[in-house]
Amino acid sequence: MVILGIDPGLGVSGFAILQKNERNTSLLDYGCLTLPPTKSIPIRIGMFHDFFLEKITLFKVTDIALETPFLGKNAQSFLKLGYLRGIMYLLGNQKNISMHDFAPREIKQMVTGFGGASKEQVSRAVLSFFPTLIQPKKNDVTDALAIAMCGLWHHKRNLFLSK
Amino acid sequence: MVILGIDPGLGVSGFAILQKNERNTSLLDYGCLTLPPTKSIPIRIGMFHDFFLEKITLFKVTDIALETPFLGKNAQSFLKLGYLRGIMYLLGNQKNISMHDFAPREIKQMVTGFGGASKEQVSRAVLSFFPTLIQPKKNDVTDALAIAMCGLWHHKRNLFLSK
Repeated sequence: MVILGIDPGLGVSGFAILQKNERNTSLLDYGCLTLPPTKSIPIRIGMFHDFFLEKITLFKVTDIALETPFLGKNAQSFLKLGYLRGIMYLLGNQKNISMHDFAPREIKQMVTGFGGASKEQVSRAVLSFFPTLIQPKKNDVTDALAIAMCGLWHHKRNLFLSK
Repeated sequence: MVILGIDPGLGVSGFAILQKNERNTSLLDYGCLTLPPTKSIPIRIGMFHDFFLEKITLFKVTDIALETPFLGKNAQSFLKLGYLRGIMYLLGNQKNISMHDFAPREIKQMVTGFGGASKEQVSRAVLSFFPTLIQPKKNDVTDALAIAMCGLWHHKRNLFLSK
């Protein structure tokens, strides 16, 4: 199982790729994709698509985990997040990848034990699981890692339940 | 210039393809894509992508016109509309197609002369431009045709302005 966790954005998208073997979990790749704000939306969407298509192919991703977005003050930002989710669903369909969706509260609960945790608490909890990971400059990476971890645990839980 | 007007939806997507030559405008294709509600969202998005990729390739589409969505009562429907717009933007980027966006009021204004026109008034106005077109069963088709017509007129207006 190779899971890609993404915290997408038309500005910055954090991502993390985890591999689960019988005995351990390894972090294959992580980082941020920054899209140039001067480029048009179709161009940025094209870049987003190509970047993640390459990651999915390179690491033979089997699962994708996303955070369920909530409608904030800006309806247009919410809609634009939809564009990027649409691209991930398309890649999921084309590459035969299982898609997982988690509510923000669910992710915080799973990772820190507290559904109302702050971004910093999530970041600290994630880093405690991966001590070799140097504190990334942006929370986008730890957010994506938290989402990927939920995908792994959720899967594990399903395995237990199905026994 | 070959313009594809779309009124997208995860249930039904209306579309119309218009070709503008020096002297006249012809309707190359129109119809509805109905996606099976029993299929998962990634599968439906894949079907939507493949269907319009084929139309774009077959008719050598140069422009795509979309209606700017507004946030209604259901935020999740609004987000899902974003998925489909994301796919259209991706195709636009990959196929080097110009993208056009029109507000619902702007479309009604251009087609009927009145920004507050009803769906039926839009439908009647559109059909008066294409007398050979038999009244389609669904308004989705006439809506898509209205969007495509706006794309054509807008382009024409831009040409005049640039002289």
